[in-house]
Amino acid sequence: MIPFNKPYLTGKETQYIEDAVKTGKISGNGKYTKMCQDFFEQHYGFKKSLLATSCTDALEMCAILADIQPGDEVIIPSYTFVSTAIAFIRQGAKVIFADSYSNNPNIDAEKIEGLITTRTKAIVPVHYAGVACDMDTIIELADKYGILVIEDAAQAIDSYHIGKDGRKRALGSIGHMAAFSFHETKNIISGEGGMLAINDDRFIQRAEIIWEKGTNRAEFFRGEVNKYGWVDIGSSFLPSEVIAAFLWAQIENINDIQEKRKNIWDAYYKGIKEMNSSLISLPVIPDYATNNAHMFYLVLQNIDQRTQFINNLKSKDIHPVFHYLSLHKSDYYKNKHDGRELVCSDKFSDCLVRLPFYYELSIDDVHQIVNTITIFYNK
Amino acid sequence: MIPFNKPYLTGKETQYIEDAVKTGKISGNGKYTKMCQDFFEQHYGFKKSLLATSCTDALEMCAILADIQPGDEVIIPSYTFVSTAIAFIRQGAKVIFADSYSNNPNIDAEKIEGLITTRTKAIVPVHYAGVACDMDTIIELADKYGILVIEDAAQAIDSYHIGKDGRKRALGSIGHMAAFSFHETKNIISGEGGMLAINDDRFIQRAEIIWEKGTNRAEFFRGEVNKYGWVDIGSSFLPSEVIAAFLWAQIENINDIQEKRKNIWDAYYKGIKEMNSSLISLPVIPDYATNNAHMFYLVLQNIDQRTQFINNLKSKDIHPVFHYLSLHKSDYYKNKHDGRELVCSDKFSDCLVRLPFYYELSIDDVHQIVNTITIFYNK
Repeated sequence: MIPFNKPYLTGKETQYIEDAVKTGKISGNGKYTKMCQDFFEQHYGFKKSLLATSCTDALEMCAILADIQPGDEVIIPSYTFVSTAIAFIRQGAKVIFADSYSNNPNIDAEKIEGLITTRTKAIVPVHYAGVACDMDTIIELADKYGILVIEDAAQAIDSYHIGKDGRKRALGSIGHMAAFSFHETKNIISGEGGMLAINDDRFIQRAEIIWEKGTNRAEFFRGEVNKYGWVDIGSSFLPSEVIAAFLWAQIENINDIQEKRKNIWDAYYKGIKEMNSSLISLPVIPDYATNNAHMFYLVLQNIDQRTQFINNLKSKDIHPVFHYLSLHKSDYYKNKHDGRELVCSDKFSDCLVRLPFYYELSIDDVHQIVNTITIFYNK
Repeated sequence: MIPFNKPYLTGKETQYIEDAVKTGKISGNGKYTKMCQDFFEQHYGFKKSLLATSCTDALEMCAILADIQPGDEVIIPSYTFVSTAIAFIRQGAKVIFADSYSNNPNIDAEKIEGLITTRTKAIVPVHYAGVACDMDTIIELADKYGILVIEDAAQAIDSYHIGKDGRKRALGSIGHMAAFSFHETKNIISGEGGMLAINDDRFIQRAEIIWEKGTNRAEFFRGEVNKYGWVDIGSSFLPSEVIAAFLWAQIENINDIQEKRKNIWDAYYKGIKEMNSSLISLPVIPDYATNNAHMFYLVLQNIDQRTQFINNLKSKDIHPVFHYLSLHKSDYYKNKHDGRELVCSDKFSDCLVRLPFYYELSIDDVHQIVNTITIFYNK
């Protein structure tokens, strides 16, 4: 049986968890949390990294830091995970859904400007499959209208954007803030888990406070204030050291993990491309984007073909899965949406299918999956 | 050196974490999450238990389930952790602070009725040190005024209340909802971690939805709906299976842990009582409460004596710590409070001190600490 996902243990996770217990500190913001955060800051150029219990929670921190007030508008793609929306809605935002490109699930940057109003507080590009959105255009718009850019980089660890100026920058380091996920399906994992990245100095001090339940504990331990107490709103956004220790074992192996995943991705791409089928669209990586091999997906012709495709592979013990459903059509939002058709988002909702993808998937497995798909299409 | 706290590893935590990885599922709501939740429901009589990433998050779920709207009032003690307040404030509540008893940090149930208005939506008794609040009086008030009771049972696992009717019920099973903590300082731990307990059927279905990011995923997997999607607000409240597996190893040893902790508590109580000092007040366990040996605290005469006490013990490498600061006097809330004096809360803020307390603290250690305190007072 080839499952869709299989979490990968590098082998040191439990050793580091035991070490964390030995230090006498397994609540949040201990040794392993700091090690992870330092790595992310140094490696990807974030001004500040704060681990979170989930990407959802990191997005909630963004919404609080952006000072979203009831009625403020936030522009997000409709083809995304529900967390992109609920984190801002919880702060009272009205979410304005944007469409995807026709050949790429990312938010169509050309369609954003028409959605900006005087209430627009933030644009939230989601780097689908770890592939960069058109950040040059998005940052230009944000600067023009004085809007924040919050990158939903849930899938985008170790992926880059190459700007018009030739600068290659890590996703999550470009907007004012960004949120990452370490959910078990991601490249590096801690089961559930996430990270807030901050690139604008204005938000760093408050981020530390809301992370620690609205207290100035971080400043106190740095000796910047002489007692610590309740100074702001906040939540318990920081994860256990058990989670951070697990994540550290993954981070140590990130180069190996990424190399392995890129080989899997390339084998899929080559295999499906050689089928030369007009019924299957391959993923598109724009010139301004790199590929972090987070996911391998195909776009089929329609929902019926996709259902047959999934059922056929499942009957051969291979488990592909579809992905998001357009959020503007959800039970929760359909009566709140302004009625615009978002045809590309709907197309990906109906037609996109993700193939099994995990560290331990062998190239032989990939060949077997590609062969199964070839036989299905030749029937 | 005798620290204030030392997290305890029962020995099976990492084995269960490895097992969770082998099942192919380390995101939330997997095998270990269900095992933990089943244990809590069966053992303590909650109608529904849902693990959470923290007690703060469990309290936030309570605030959402209570349908707190901006301007609604929630009555909580001032002598509590900041999370009791911020979870409700995040939903827009106005927090009304109540005072403690003079001889017990718990909310003074006799002082609650005078704080109830037409805007009061909930009373949040905090079972300080795991010792029950006067739940008979609180439930009567709630019934009389149609108000919800949300137990902040952060410290109160495996502790009980004996009602006027003679019924002995677990803390957290009495109010409409309750929140527990498994922070590293608690009796059973997962570093950071918490649990929502629900005792009123009306809230169970929605709790599962807001727990899973506003989706009806739980109903879908039970076959109750034929597709799952976005139906409500919510967040990612559920912890990683890594956390649940860790917690399961603790739960398996809860009887041993509780016996050990009660012996430590009794040794402290006996030792300090024998000092027969008029300068030290011992903890009071009301007749309607049991003792879960979460914490051993003393109440001294004033803040100067407490500072000398702490400094003296620290100079002998023993690390006691004080606890909360009255929330109504915090930087965040002092201008929002209605000006009432809460003298008992302030007294505990100034005078309460917690002694080292953890599983591996030996009875010899306790005797050494008691001797050090005796020498300090005899000087």
